[in-house]
Amino acid sequence: MLERYLPILQWLRTYNRGTLTNDLVAALIVTIMLIPQSLAYALLAGLPAEVGLYASILPLVAYAIFGTSRTLAVGPVAVVSLMTAAAVGNLALSGTAEYLTAAIALAFISGLMLILMGVLRLGMLANFLSHPVISGFITASGIIIAASQVKHILGVNASGHNMLELLTSIVEHSSELHWPTLIIGVSATAFLFWVRKNLKPLLIKSGMNSRMADILAKAGPVAAVAATTLVTFLFHLDQGGVKVVGDVPTGLPGFALPNFDSDLWQQLFISALLISVVGFVESVSVAQTLAAKRRQRIDPNQELIGLGASNVASSISGGFPVTGGFSRSVVNFDAGAETPAAGAFTAVGIALATLLLTPLLFFLPKATLAATIIVAVLSLVDLGALKRTWAYSRPDFIAMAATILLTLISGVEAGIIAGVSLSILLYLHRTSKPHSALVGRVPGTEHFRNVERFDVEIDHRVLTLRIDESLYFANARYLEDRVYDLISANKEVKDFVLMCPAVNLIDASALESLEAINQRLKDSGVSFHLSEVKGPVMDRLKRSHFLDELSGKVFLSQYEAWETLRTHDDALTQKSTA
Amino acid sequence: MLERYLPILQWLRTYNRGTLTNDLVAALIVTIMLIPQSLAYALLAGLPAEVGLYASILPLVAYAIFGTSRTLAVGPVAVVSLMTAAAVGNLALSGTAEYLTAAIALAFISGLMLILMGVLRLGMLANFLSHPVISGFITASGIIIAASQVKHILGVNASGHNMLELLTSIVEHSSELHWPTLIIGVSATAFLFWVRKNLKPLLIKSGMNSRMADILAKAGPVAAVAATTLVTFLFHLDQGGVKVVGDVPTGLPGFALPNFDSDLWQQLFISALLISVVGFVESVSVAQTLAAKRRQRIDPNQELIGLGASNVASSISGGFPVTGGFSRSVVNFDAGAETPAAGAFTAVGIALATLLLTPLLFFLPKATLAATIIVAVLSLVDLGALKRTWAYSRPDFIAMAATILLTLISGVEAGIIAGVSLSILLYLHRTSKPHSALVGRVPGTEHFRNVERFDVEIDHRVLTLRIDESLYFANARYLEDRVYDLISANKEVKDFVLMCPAVNLIDASALESLEAINQRLKDSGVSFHLSEVKGPVMDRLKRSHFLDELSGKVFLSQYEAWETLRTHDDALTQKSTA
Repeated sequence: MLERYLPILQWLRTYNRGTLTNDLVAALIVTIMLIPQSLAYALLAGLPAEVGLYASILPLVAYAIFGTSRTLAVGPVAVVSLMTAAAVGNLALSGTAEYLTAAIALAFISGLMLILMGVLRLGMLANFLSHPVISGFITASGIIIAASQVKHILGVNASGHNMLELLTSIVEHSSELHWPTLIIGVSATAFLFWVRKNLKPLLIKSGMNSRMADILAKAGPVAAVAATTLVTFLFHLDQGGVKVVGDVPTGLPGFALPNFDSDLWQQLFISALLISVVGFVESVSVAQTLAAKRRQRIDPNQELIGLGASNVASSISGGFPVTGGFSRSVVNFDAGAETPAAGAFTAVGIALATLLLTPLLFFLPKATLAATIIVAVLSLVDLGALKRTWAYSRPDFIAMAATILLTLISGVEAGIIAGVSLSILLYLHRTSKPHSALVGRVPGTEHFRNVERFDVEIDHRVLTLRIDESLYFANARYLEDRVYDLISANKEVKDFVLMCPAVNLIDASALESLEAINQRLKDSGVSFHLSEVKGPVMDRLKRSHFLDELSGKVFLSQYEAWETLRTHDDALTQKSTA
Repeated sequence: MLERYLPILQWLRTYNRGTLTNDLVAALIVTIMLIPQSLAYALLAGLPAEVGLYASILPLVAYAIFGTSRTLAVGPVAVVSLMTAAAVGNLALSGTAEYLTAAIALAFISGLMLILMGVLRLGMLANFLSHPVISGFITASGIIIAASQVKHILGVNASGHNMLELLTSIVEHSSELHWPTLIIGVSATAFLFWVRKNLKPLLIKSGMNSRMADILAKAGPVAAVAATTLVTFLFHLDQGGVKVVGDVPTGLPGFALPNFDSDLWQQLFISALLISVVGFVESVSVAQTLAAKRRQRIDPNQELIGLGASNVASSISGGFPVTGGFSRSVVNFDAGAETPAAGAFTAVGIALATLLLTPLLFFLPKATLAATIIVAVLSLVDLGALKRTWAYSRPDFIAMAATILLTLISGVEAGIIAGVSLSILLYLHRTSKPHSALVGRVPGTEHFRNVERFDVEIDHRVLTLRIDESLYFANARYLEDRVYDLISANKEVKDFVLMCPAVNLIDASALESLEAINQRLKDSGVSFHLSEVKGPVMDRLKRSHFLDELSGKVFLSQYEAWETLRTHDDALTQKSTA
C-alpha cells in the first residue's frame, strides 16, 4: 500500500553505484538543457526568469518520490506555459504581482486536482481526449507559441490574445523594429536550426561516437545563450536597446503557501482543470512510450499523484505549473537515466545554477530565449497529421481541424474544449445508427446470415433483425425507427425476433425503446422475441419489468427461435434471392 | 420535394367532409382546453396574459402547413414556459417592455435554430438527450413550476431563482398571506384534482359514454375559470386584494419583426438552443407515440422545420416560444382529429376568443390560473422513475438524479447541461473497457471460444484476444494496456492475434494504439496479427500505413490464423483447464 503511493520505496532498495553513475551523467546533460529552457518557458508564460528556475527544482524532487516513470523529466514545458499565460492573462497584467500570485495559485489548484484525480483513480479521464484533438491542439499551440516569440526577435512591443491580434499588432509595431535585436535573434535561430539539423552528422563524421554527438547537439541552446550573452556584455548592447533578462535574484526560492482567495480560485478553476488534463495526457504519453522501450510499466493513477505533488511543490516554492516534457525526457532516457534519482540530481544542478549563475544571466538577450523557444516548438507542429487523418477518417479530421482552427482563432482553452466536445459528439453521431442486418438460415445448418449477402432461407411470417452493437441512448431511437419501418413494409409478419449476439449493453434509454417496440408490435398483432441475449445483459433485463411485459419469448439461440417460430409450410419458407 | 417541405400538400388533397367534421369537433374541445392553459403558461413565463393567446393562434397555423404529425397540438407548454422565464429573467424584470421584447426575440431565435437544424437534417441531435436525463429534467421542472405557483395561491409576493430561494422567500412573505386568494386558490386546486380523478367515472356511472365523459372532464379548468371569475366579479374581490388578470387588450395581435440587437441575440443564444432541443424532444416523442397508434409515421427533420416555423410565427405575432404539448395533443387525438387542419381550426377558435372574450378575463383570479398549472404539472412529476432506474442501471440513475438535483438547485439550464454532459461521460466511461476474451479452439471444430469458460485447445506460442466492441478513443488506451499485460505475463508468446469479429469501427485514436501495439510487440520479438476484420473496417485500414508496417498478417478467419500460426508440436498445444 505504502509502496503504491511512494514508488521511491521500490527503486531505492536496489540502488547501487552503477545506477548512480548513470543517473548523474543523465542529470548533468538534462541540467545543461533545462537552464535555458526554464528561463525561456517562464518568459513564454509572462513570468520573471527566476520563476522558471524555481519550477525546475522542488517539482523534480517531488516527482522522484511519487512518480512511477523511471525516466520522465518534469519541469516547465511549452504548451503548459502557454496555457498558463492564457489563464493568468485574463486576470492580471504580465509583470504585476497579481500575475505572479495567480500563476502560483494556478499551479497549486492544478496540483490538488491531479492528486484528487489520482486518489479517485480517474486516470481514464485522459482517454476522453481523442488523439486527433491532442495532436491538433499541440500543433496549434506550437504555431501560437512561435508567433508569440516573433516580437522578441524583432524587438517590438506587440501583444494579442489570438493569432490575428498578434499578427496585426506585430505589423502595427513594425516601425519599432530594432536591428541589433533582430541580428541576435535571427543568428541565434539560424544557429539553433543548423545545430539541430547538421551538428550531429558532422560530429559523427569527424569521428565522435553517436551518443556523445547527440548530447553535444542538445547543448546548442547553451552555446547560443553563452555567445549572445557575451556579445551583449562586451558591446553594451543592453544600453543600445537590446532587451535582456536583467536582474535575476540569486539564491534558492523561499517557501510560501499560495493565495487562497476564493474568487481567484473560482476564476482559475476551469483553466486549472484544462491544464491538469492536457499536462497529464502529454506527460503520460511520453512516460508510457519510454517505459515500453525498456519493458517497464507506469501506473497512470499514480502518475496523477506524482504530477500533482510536483505542481504543489512548484507552487509552494514560487513556481508555476509543470508537467513531464517530451524533449527533456527523451534526452534523459538516451543519456542513460535509470531511476527518478536522475531527476533529483537535475534539481540539485538547477539549484546550484540558481545560487551561482544568476548574475551571468543579466546580459542574456530575450531574443536568444525566443529563438530557443521557436526552434523547440516548431518541432511540435505536425501539419502532415491533418493529411493522414483526412485520408483515414473524415470525422477525426473534422475534430482535428476544428481544434487547430479554434485554438488559433479563439485561444487554447476554447480550442481544447471545442475539440473534446466535437470529438465526443462525432463519435455519438457515428454510433447513432447501429449496424444491423435482416438474417435468414443458411440451409441445412444452425447458422444465420445477412439476407442481402447470402442465399438463406427466410420465413415470410417471421422477421429476424440481428443488431451488431450495444444499444444506448444515441442509437435507441434509430432502432425503433428501423423496426417500425420493417414492420410496416412487411404486413404479413406475425413474429419479430431481435437477435442480440453483439449487444454488450442495453442502457435505460434503450430499454425504454425496447418497451415501446414491444407495445407497438403488440398493438399491430406482432409478437416481439429476443434471441442470443448475453448473460450480463439478460441479468440486467431481469431487474426491469420488460420481460414480464414481453409479448414473445427470449430464445437462447437463434436456431431455437427459428425452429419454434417458423411456419412449417414450405410454401411460406423460401430462399432469399441474395 | 415541395411535398417534403410542405406536408399540407399531401393531406389537403384527400380532405373531405367527414374529415372536416372530425377536425372541427376536436378543434372545439382543444380550444376550450387551450384558453385557460395559454393564459396560465403566459403567467408562468412571466408575461402578460394576452401573449399566451397570441402564441396560440399563428403558430398553430404554421404547424398545420409545415408539420408532419396529424394530431400534434402546438402552443405554449409548461416546461418551455419555465425555460423562457429562466432565460429572459436573467436579462430583464418581469413586467417590463424589455422582458417582453426578449421573450419574443427568444421565440424567433429558437425558431430559426429549429429550421436550420431541420434543413441540415440534424433531428438525430435529439438522441443525445438520454431518457433518464429528459425524464429527470421534466420531473424537476414540474416540481419547480408547482412551487413557483404556490405564491399565487397564497397571494404573497415571493420570488427566487431556485427552489431554496423560492421556498425561503415564501416563508419570509408568509405574513402577507391573503385569505380570500387562498380560499379561491385552494378550492380551485381541490376542484381540479377532484375533476381529474373522479369526474369521468362519475359521468360514466350516470350513463354518459366514455368519450364524452373524457372530454367533459378536460373542461374542468374552464369551469374553474368561469366560476372563480364570476365570484370575483360579483363580490368585487379584486378590490379586496385578490390579484386578477386585469385588462387584456381586445383584438388580434399585430405583426412585427423581433428585436435584432446583436447583444440580445448573443445573450439568448444558449437559452434558445436549450429550449429548441428540449421542446423538440418533448414534441417529437408525443408526435411519434400518437402516430404509431394509427400506423402513421412522422419525419423528425420536417418536424424541426414545422416547430421552427411555429416559433417564428409566434415571434412575429407577439408570442413566446411554443412546442407540441403532451396533454392537448392526446385530447386532440382522442377527440378524433384527423389532420393538422384541426390545429388551424383551434387557431380560429383562439382568435375568436381574443376578439370576443377578453373583457370577461378582467376578473379572472391569478390564483385560479396557478391552480390549473399546479394540477397540470404535478402529473409530469414521476419520482417512481428514480426507483426503476436505480434497479436497472446505476449510471443511468446517477445521470437522472444529478439532472433532478441540479435543476432544482441551480435552475433549468444548468440542470439540462449537466445531465447531458454527465450521461455522455458515463457512457464513455462504461465503454472505456471494451469487452474482450482470450480464445482457444473448440477441439475438432473451426470455432473459437473464451478459454475461461470452455475446454478449448490453446497454443503457448500463440495468444488470441477476441475484442467484442468497436475501438475508439475512449477504449483505445485500455486495449493497449490489456495487450501489454498479456505479453509481459506470457513470455514464451511469439504470435499475437487480435480477433475482430465485432469491431465495426476503428477510429484514428484506436489506429494510433494499434500502431503502438504493433511497434512494441515488434520490439519484443512478437508478431502482431489480425483476424476476422470486417470489410468496411479493412477498407479503412487500407487507407492508412498500418497494414504496410504490420509485423504479422491479416487472416480472413480465426481458423486460418490458427492453422498457419500453431506450433505443430502437440506438447505445446494443450487444453485449457476451464
